[in-house]
Amino acid sequence: MSVLIVGSTALDSIKTPKAENPRLLGGSASHAAVAASFFGPVNMVGVVGDDFPRRYIQLYERHQIDLEGLQRVPGKTFHWSGEYELNMNNRRTLLTELGVFETFNPQLPKSYTSSPFVLLANIAPSLQEHVLNQMRKPKFVVADTMDLWLNIALPDLLKLIKRLDGFVLNDSEAQMLTKEENLFPALKKIHQLGPKYVIIKKGSHGSILSSPGGLFLCPAYPLPKVVDPTGAGDSFVGGMMGFLAASKGGIDKNIRRAMVYGSVVASYCCEGFGLQRTDRVTRAQVEQRMRELTQLTKFA
Amino acid sequence: MSVLIVGSTALDSIKTPKAENPRLLGGSASHAAVAASFFGPVNMVGVVGDDFPRRYIQLYERHQIDLEGLQRVPGKTFHWSGEYELNMNNRRTLLTELGVFETFNPQLPKSYTSSPFVLLANIAPSLQEHVLNQMRKPKFVVADTMDLWLNIALPDLLKLIKRLDGFVLNDSEAQMLTKEENLFPALKKIHQLGPKYVIIKKGSHGSILSSPGGLFLCPAYPLPKVVDPTGAGDSFVGGMMGFLAASKGGIDKNIRRAMVYGSVVASYCCEGFGLQRTDRVTRAQVEQRMRELTQLTKFA
Repeated sequence: MSVLIVGSTALDSIKTPKAENPRLLGGSASHAAVAASFFGPVNMVGVVGDDFPRRYIQLYERHQIDLEGLQRVPGKTFHWSGEYELNMNNRRTLLTELGVFETFNPQLPKSYTSSPFVLLANIAPSLQEHVLNQMRKPKFVVADTMDLWLNIALPDLLKLIKRLDGFVLNDSEAQMLTKEENLFPALKKIHQLGPKYVIIKKGSHGSILSSPGGLFLCPAYPLPKVVDPTGAGDSFVGGMMGFLAASKGGIDKNIRRAMVYGSVVASYCCEGFGLQRTDRVTRAQVEQRMRELTQLTKFA
Repeated sequence: MSVLIVGSTALDSIKTPKAENPRLLGGSASHAAVAASFFGPVNMVGVVGDDFPRRYIQLYERHQIDLEGLQRVPGKTFHWSGEYELNMNNRRTLLTELGVFETFNPQLPKSYTSSPFVLLANIAPSLQEHVLNQMRKPKFVVADTMDLWLNIALPDLLKLIKRLDGFVLNDSEAQMLTKEENLFPALKKIHQLGPKYVIIKKGSHGSILSSPGGLFLCPAYPLPKVVDPTGAGDSFVGGMMGFLAASKGGIDKNIRRAMVYGSVVASYCCEGFGLQRTDRVTRAQVEQRMRELTQLTKFA
């Protein structure tokens, strides 16, 4: 089955202690869509300006991402610039130019509205809900978010969360949202906001799922070198949704493996700037790291 | 087989945002020995003063810990006092009174010197080596440490590390020792110092083993409430060594399960002040959390 992904499509200028890379392909939808594309068909919704490089369109096409929902309009593509500290965890935003995103009004192609799996990747919650409103009876709707929306659009976000099957956020966001230091009471409080499936991302420490099938402690793939973690969280949730959409059986049967697949795709994401590494990864390489993670976590 | 454990035997006064508890039973050897006692016989080496409460001796005895190696001498028992922040991770030392530890010269009872498993729990590395020098052909020697010794006794510690089979430290100590931000290159550098088995503890994020049998990502048991994390690392390594000593077969066959057992005992440790919770735990409760952790991490 297909997965519909809406989110940002951006140009990212990224500085790390070792290198600087201007105008990479970035944005939550780009990362999530490429990650999901390893497993099955993806419909992507987003907007880019007339400065958007042709080679990035070709990258989407190379991954069989359907682009009917990608608006191309006059103006500048959303541009984000950030800088990472030596530990590759702390980052600060240097610049955010919304460009064509400022007036983005996502209109779904008719064929998209019946996608059974919907990923509302990180973007303003009002836009996420605007897309959700156009969907006809989706089977499984998941949203990701970021601290910015907790700070400036909390009422919109809370309204959206009520309608979700699954909600994904990172540990510091979960603490911010629930005022709970400990993640397990935080998970309980987030369930009370609506979603049956709550996933807290912990970067290199993996992630935690709380669901009708119980808790799951999902490992991260161990990386001896992190080149650029931008988009790792988007890759994680994109890979997860792509695998779920491609799998037979219910969510509870598949979601644990789906998360581990998400971890694997996120690990590749971290090994290159922007999408440079993920773009070159094969499904066989994804399967290889799945086998490794199985081996790395076995103790029974 | 028996495990010999040397380390500190102390009175801990612990302050958390919610409570204050003076003169609890503490010290690395106390926590590690009680943790190991769930699995088999333990010989404990340490020193206490004449102020050491009778009820704490009874606690050791209740757990069948052999006390022939526990010196009782005139003077004050080692007293540590610390305060935790709200997140229960950051702590600061308020007071350290070495007392009888200042002149501690561990002399092993003859029957102890043939223990095949040796845990040099956190204590000055010169004392750890002094004990190791008295052992006859131990099968598996593991040491734990803390940042203090990296700062004030690094040459002693490096000398000891060369002689170890296994070395255990936490993530920030590994970074301090190797000057590597990323834990995987840090593990490699620590192997070069001698030990074949290196374990990096990451608190509530679990731990990582690097060994001849490969890497292992060991989960932490999820705790919705942490009362007092003091001694959790000692409980982890004590539980691990206790299980290894009690198990048939080689180290590589058993060490992963041993670490998970260590995680389980450490989780109980965090649920009460000092050893109050661990003291009341049964082997059946340990097995129950083992089954839970197996379930919580399954995805294949």
